[in-house]
Amino acid sequence: MDNSVRIGVLGASGYTGADLIRLAALHPAIEIASVTANTYAGKTMAEVFPHLSFISLPRLTKVEDADWSKVDAVFCGLPHGTTQEIISEILTENPAVKVVDMSADFRLRDPETYKTWYGHEHRAPKLQDEAVYGLTEHYREAIKDSRLVACPGCYPTASLLALLPIVASGEVVADDIVIDAKSGVSGAGRSPKQNTLFTEAGEGLSPYAVAEHRHAPEIEQEVSKVAGRSLYVNFTPHLIPMSRGELCSIYVRLEGGATAADLRKTLSDAYAGEPFVHVLPEGTLPQTQAVRGSNHVQIAVFADRIPGRAIVISTLDNLVKGSAGQAIQNFNLMFGLTETTGLGQLALFP
Amino acid sequence: MDNSVRIGVLGASGYTGADLIRLAALHPAIEIASVTANTYAGKTMAEVFPHLSFISLPRLTKVEDADWSKVDAVFCGLPHGTTQEIISEILTENPAVKVVDMSADFRLRDPETYKTWYGHEHRAPKLQDEAVYGLTEHYREAIKDSRLVACPGCYPTASLLALLPIVASGEVVADDIVIDAKSGVSGAGRSPKQNTLFTEAGEGLSPYAVAEHRHAPEIEQEVSKVAGRSLYVNFTPHLIPMSRGELCSIYVRLEGGATAADLRKTLSDAYAGEPFVHVLPEGTLPQTQAVRGSNHVQIAVFADRIPGRAIVISTLDNLVKGSAGQAIQNFNLMFGLTETTGLGQLALFP
Amino acid sequence: MDNSVRIGVLGASGYTGADLIRLAALHPAIEIASVTANTYAGKTMAEVFPHLSFISLPRLTKVEDADWSKVDAVFCGLPHGTTQEIISEILTENPAVKVVDMSADFRLRDPETYKTWYGHEHRAPKLQDEAVYGLTEHYREAIKDSRLVACPGCYPTASLLALLPIVASGEVVADDIVIDAKSGVSGAGRSPKQNTLFTEAGEGLSPYAVAEHRHAPEIEQEVSKVAGRSLYVNFTPHLIPMSRGELCSIYVRLEGGATAADLRKTLSDAYAGEPFVHVLPEGTLPQTQAVRGSNHVQIAVFADRIPGRAIVISTLDNLVKGSAGQAIQNFNLMFGLTETTGLGQLALFP
Amino acid sequence: MDNSVRIGVLGASGYTGADLIRLAALHPAIEIASVTANTYAGKTMAEVFPHLSFISLPRLTKVEDADWSKVDAVFCGLPHGTTQEIISEILTENPAVKVVDMSADFRLRDPETYKTWYGHEHRAPKLQDEAVYGLTEHYREAIKDSRLVACPGCYPTASLLALLPIVASGEVVADDIVIDAKSGVSGAGRSPKQNTLFTEAGEGLSPYAVAEHRHAPEIEQEVSKVAGRSLYVNFTPHLIPMSRGELCSIYVRLEGGATAADLRKTLSDAYAGEPFVHVLPEGTLPQTQAVRGSNHVQIAVFADRIPGRAIVISTLDNLVKGSAGQAIQNFNLMFGLTETTGLGQLALFP
Repeated sequence: MDNSVRIGVLGASGYTGADLIRLAALHPAIEIASVTANTYAGKTMAEVFPHLSFISLPRLTKVEDADWSKVDAVFCGLPHGTTQEIISEILTENPAVKVVDMSADFRLRDPETYKTWYGHEHRAPKLQDEAVYGLTEHYREAIKDSRLVACPGCYPTASLLALLPIVASGEVVADDIVIDAKSGVSGAGRSPKQNTLFTEAGEGLSPYAVAEHRHAPEIEQEVSKVAGRSLYVNFTPHLIPMSRGELCSIYVRLEGGATAADLRKTLSDAYAGEPFVHVLPEGTLPQTQAVRGSNHVQIAVFADRIPGRAIVISTLDNLVKGSAGQAIQNFNLMFGLTETTGLGQLALFP
Repeated sequence: MDNSVRIGVLGASGYTGADLIRLAALHPAIEIASVTANTYAGKTMAEVFPHLSFISLPRLTKVEDADWSKVDAVFCGLPHGTTQEIISEILTENPAVKVVDMSADFRLRDPETYKTWYGHEHRAPKLQDEAVYGLTEHYREAIKDSRLVACPGCYPTASLLALLPIVASGEVVADDIVIDAKSGVSGAGRSPKQNTLFTEAGEGLSPYAVAEHRHAPEIEQEVSKVAGRSLYVNFTPHLIPMSRGELCSIYVRLEGGATAADLRKTLSDAYAGEPFVHVLPEGTLPQTQAVRGSNHVQIAVFADRIPGRAIVISTLDNLVKGSAGQAIQNFNLMFGLTETTGLGQLALFP
Repeated sequence: MDNSVRIGVLGASGYTGADLIRLAALHPAIEIASVTANTYAGKTMAEVFPHLSFISLPRLTKVEDADWSKVDAVFCGLPHGTTQEIISEILTENPAVKVVDMSADFRLRDPETYKTWYGHEHRAPKLQDEAVYGLTEHYREAIKDSRLVACPGCYPTASLLALLPIVASGEVVADDIVIDAKSGVSGAGRSPKQNTLFTEAGEGLSPYAVAEHRHAPEIEQEVSKVAGRSLYVNFTPHLIPMSRGELCSIYVRLEGGATAADLRKTLSDAYAGEPFVHVLPEGTLPQTQAVRGSNHVQIAVFADRIPGRAIVISTLDNLVKGSAGQAIQNFNLMFGLTETTGLGQLALFP
Repeated sequence: MDNSVRIGVLGASGYTGADLIRLAALHPAIEIASVTANTYAGKTMAEVFPHLSFISLPRLTKVEDADWSKVDAVFCGLPHGTTQEIISEILTENPAVKVVDMSADFRLRDPETYKTWYGHEHRAPKLQDEAVYGLTEHYREAIKDSRLVACPGCYPTASLLALLPIVASGEVVADDIVIDAKSGVSGAGRSPKQNTLFTEAGEGLSPYAVAEHRHAPEIEQEVSKVAGRSLYVNFTPHLIPMSRGELCSIYVRLEGGATAADLRKTLSDAYAGEPFVHVLPEGTLPQTQAVRGSNHVQIAVFADRIPGRAIVISTLDNLVKGSAGQAIQNFNLMFGLTETTGLGQLALFP
């Protein structure tokens, strides 16, 4: 693969890292040169993820043992908080490298907000300032020119794709947005925890982190930016007994006589020609099953029974368009490749 | 069982009928005298429901072959629309019989609303007028004196238990209520349909009947009654990959400076001493797992990030407190038994 | 509750402990006096198991802080290896107490076998010798007179109920028995492990501990005893994406011209009148759904396509008849109560 | 796509048809020219399968309205019994067309066996004779030259890949093979049936068609052929609460002093260099999760506790290597393409 882009994957033992590799393995212009995972250093990927045993991959190393001078791009799937210093070092020592960060470390633009939600000062504030927010459809041009893209969280991706056009158009009241979010269990990661055991999360559902989830300030940051004023959103996530998939039911108050049909048209216009964002015709129901494993997003709009309100529902796969897939979409832009390269996989259904 | 109440179960081949029998089998004052299911007439319950094969039950008959003069009470789990004429006949010919209806036929008080949502004139309007709405905690006294109780739908039970006290207290804006509802698949019944196959409903979720579910007018009827004016609610149900359980996340606008803590207190006071309705302390998360298979309900209140709003979450088992369990609770009242008799089962967890 | 038996539950923070409490809460002759769980000492059961929050229970204590002189019986749901010393102490200091052990510590009769499989000398060999193996239907009389009953493992219960009568009758070749076992995830306990996360165990299945599971020597011990010679069995467990339930498909070679119908008759005769063990008529398929949450067992026999072979399939709930339910069944015998007391719950289906 | 092979898909509204399209959409040399499904004729694929809405596909037609002269290959995913006449007609009228049949119609070579198991005379006996059995790794050369390939059933694929080499080598007793098979629910198809509802098949498992499943004679046909004599196998399938995936635990008696290690070596040698069949090293456990959605197969061998026996376990995705994936693998051979073309997708995990 002469013209391949050589990539390194930081945090390859987590679900986002693994899904990045699953997708990268089918990407015609990617060569996976390095995979790191400190806990599993020395092991093969096949030992850590049997479903990746059928392709040839480098052995896992510690972050500090990877040779970043030999890669063109780094995908980062580390837990939040650990990413900023590592990325900072890599970029300092290897200025030609481009970074696609799937962690939460560079998403929030405001250092104070970061500190409030993550409990410490940001350790790479200059990079935080430089990073481009990787919501592809809304930051496409900036992403093309960036060397550090902070891919949005899964919930923010689903919420913002639905909200930004209709907030920008002034058709909904920006500070009265209720987001009832539902996610599969993979969003909680691969570290063993009691509440994500099969026996605990199966055959039942529960809300969690009600009104205090870290994706709330991220959504607020972007909605505020488009609304032109600082505001709060309701964000209430629920843990659903499925492994993948995410659906946000967003309840909005209409402004200036707008109707559900108006919102649908605004969204359809905004995403006309987009390869991955699909606004459904009236009456068609979105479902996570339709996008599971793919980079596609469905958005639908419904009239509310309460006059002057509407319902906007968006769905995506939290590990793909909500993480690794959007990361590759951004990577393609950053390297001048066709945006859809390597992202042709359809949902695995049933 | 000399002092037992002899019951008949109409529609014993559906999930609510089966769950009624599961509970009745442990009820010390019930003798199951008759079970009907037209499609399965002549079969044993063991053939239709293997989990009921371990107890002694009468053979299934057609409705018209049952001898209602030999029963004291009839539980009705028929599909909506078929119930009203059968109940009407039974009550006419057996005036001493009491009826606990788990179908939708007698829930709506207004004949016009009924016609709008069910597509035909009600066929027993006098009984519709006579029926008591069986939301036990709010209609207890009327239920005691009634011979026809219309048990609420599962979603209305979950929603109204959370809403009625705080609408009555004037602490929330009654015509700005958003109910995001999530239900297990058993709510869709046992008739084979493509969308409730394991392969279709598993590992994914979707909204359905958005803004047009028949439980919406039922919720509106009761909220309007308490609010003192006719109003609409948002009601958006979602199909969740689990068999049982239901959780309603209700988003409300606060009135007159009320806080989440105020709502919690109002609810705690309203349900103090109730055996089955539990208002959780601040910070405790409800989950369907805690109530699965039991008649218990959990309600929790959370502050919203948006000033002036709050989140009320309720959860129950759709087949128990949402149907068969509440039916037995009402039956106990109608027959002068201790209200909790036969309803001691705790959730099956995990 | 004047005549109640006061019980203590050791290891109340595990799934078997919790299921014991779920069942005991409905048992008319049990008073739960003490619950211990060292990790959670000081917490309420409601904090540890929300589904148990609706009944009144003592606060969790450490084992050493419990007052065993105030209880009549101890149910023990501790992990294996920790039980033997604690039970030994309790029995020494409180000779009137009776112990129903749900752990693995007293199941194996042979100290050498114990050491081989559990890696250390047994620490209470006298009690090991005294303990009665609690497979109720086969050790009923001994259980009645015992003060220490070692309840069988879940897999041995399912396997032995199917095997013992047909090995005893000489109709199957005892040293050519293949047991393909399938269990829900609750069998792996509540401690967080990667392989039992929802994301790992869901939507897939795998064998585990092939030919080296600790339930194999337990099954061999009992089959050997009935066969009159020491032998091996094949025992291959599989982890199934469900929380509860267990099904053993047992493949046997027929002896002396016996047929599947002969095996069915032998089993039917052996369990005639048994309240919890049900031999199904020809052609009826067992399923874990029929027994989930109940103490019932289904056994079915099928002719094999290979001449001279048959298939025996048994199913039960691993936490009930496979653990806590059988424990209560034995407890009832030990205290002279009706054997079925408190065990009337039918399966929760769907 | 000038050099593309134009394909038609018969029975595109079933799960195998849909999975064929999912895979074909990523195949660089396939153009989907025609899709038929009589019940859904006139509809778009997006209406029938929302997850296929993101690619461009022809509208569904009736079989009789398709123009087979415009296609080079036909993939057939019709229910058994309906295929033989349609295929016969297509091949008569379009002699250049090649057919990859995923139905059961041409798998059994013996007309009597077919009649016995399918209840009627075969309606295209000449084609039955001509058809090549599409177990790729064992019929590769014949497939290359064939115009009609009968892809094996999912269970036979999993079973035969594990069995053929070790029966051929004489290391196992061919007429004492026990196959305990476990499959996800998608194997039952998309037609609504009560037993495959989420509520019925979820959170539980059951055997079905014990000793009378139609895949038994198919397995026997191929094992008999290799063994050189007519024989029976035990084949006991179980329905598992997952959508996709299949695992066969095969219990064999060893011949002539062979060991588990010998079997492993025989299998490793047989599949050395195979792109999709992977014999695992000693101690590694196969799992459906590792192959879900991919064309890969895992096979592992374990020593049995019973001397002289061994356990061979194989796993695959029933809709991919068990159907649509193997179909494309065969198609590639029939059209002179690289065998792995379009089959690079790794398992979707989690």
